Amino acid sequence: NTAPAHDNIIYGNRGMSLEQEINLSNKYYLESGIAVIHKKPIPIQIVDVCYPKRSAAVIKEAYFKQASTTDYNGVYRGHYIDFEAKETCNRSSFPLNNFHDHQIKHMKACEKQQGICFTIVKFVVRQEIYLMPSHLLFHYWDGREKGRKSIPYEQIKQESYLINYHINPRIPYLKGVDQLINKLKMP
Amino acid sequence: NTAPAHDNIIYGNRGMSLEQEINLSNKYYLESGIAVIHKKPIPIQIVDVCYPKRSAAVIKEAYFKQASTTDYNGVYRGHYIDFEAKETCNRSSFPLNNFHDHQIKHMKACEKQQGICFTIVKFVVRQEIYLMPSHLLFHYWDGREKGRKSIPYEQIKQESYLINYHINPRIPYLKGVDQLINKLKMP
Ligand SMILES: [Mg+2]
Ligand SMILES: [Mg+2]
Repeated sequence: NTAPAHDNIIYGNRGMSLEQEINLSNKYYLESGIAVIHKKPIPIQIVDVCYPKRSAAVIKEAYFKQASTTDYNGVYRGHYIDFEAKETCNRSSFPLNNFHDHQIKHMKACEKQQGICFTIVKFVVRQEIYLMPSHLLFHYWDGREKGRKSIPYEQIKQESYLINYHINPRIPYLKGVDQLINKLKMP
Repeated sequence: NTAPAHDNIIYGNRGMSLEQEINLSNKYYLESGIAVIHKKPIPIQIVDVCYPKRSAAVIKEAYFKQASTTDYNGVYRGHYIDFEAKETCNRSSFPLNNFHDHQIKHMKACEKQQGICFTIVKFVVRQEIYLMPSHLLFHYWDGREKGRKSIPYEQIKQESYLINYHINPRIPYLKGVDQLINKLKMP
């Protein structure tokens, strides 16, 4: 690998949101036949549609609905993959109010069916991206009423997989997924 | 099973689209902890959004985008599940123009990753629902330039799994998925 890693870290993410970076990575994975993972469309409640003659239907009134699941899903090497992507400007912890209850419920239901669930967390100030296994999220989420409202950075660093920027794919997060799958297979 | 099967066949689907029937079935599967399978939201191209004070954002102009994948996906017993739902009023065959090229490409890509892909086909006049394995669809699709433009009913009947109406879930299509998985496992 002769990619200039340092340059990637500096230039790799200027002006691009984490979501855009993941979408580009998924495009690469799809076109290379490595995985089929897509961003789910935003759910919309359509109230009024107009059908002009000789042209496409126009939605004239619609509202954003709360997403009932996560941002991304798909299939990779026989595994169902399901994840959220989240950015934070915090340095020392990842706030749990980034999540909704139904997202956590959805991930727990998917894991019950042996799906691979995680969150791609970007610490924007640190320019660090982690693939955080769901057990860590569940642990803090389930204890949030009595305990702290965020996951400490040090904990994420210890129990997650660091994803370094790369040229193509931009965010090679499936490397983290491979490690997670191997770990889950262990007794 | 004491369900009045005949009554179900008669009343089970009055005024309800196949999609609504599948959504209800998925709700049952989800709430029973059997599977996590969702309809993907319709992809929309948003052009204009207005943010009134003190109320929710309103989408004022948007357009329907062509879906690049299939209707449904999710996870069941460790398997990635991906399918289309299609109705036809034809009696003797299922027209291939019900599909788009990118849907077929998507299903082929998912199968390469060991996903379980199929189509739930409803012959409306016959009131029969089949879970049609993708190999049958691919066979006719790949030969459509030179050959026929539809899949014969008799062929679907022979190589697919008949799904009988039930009370809950209304369309117990995971029974067909079980059979399909077992068949795919055989050498
Ligand atoms: Mg997100
Ligand atoms: Mg459909």
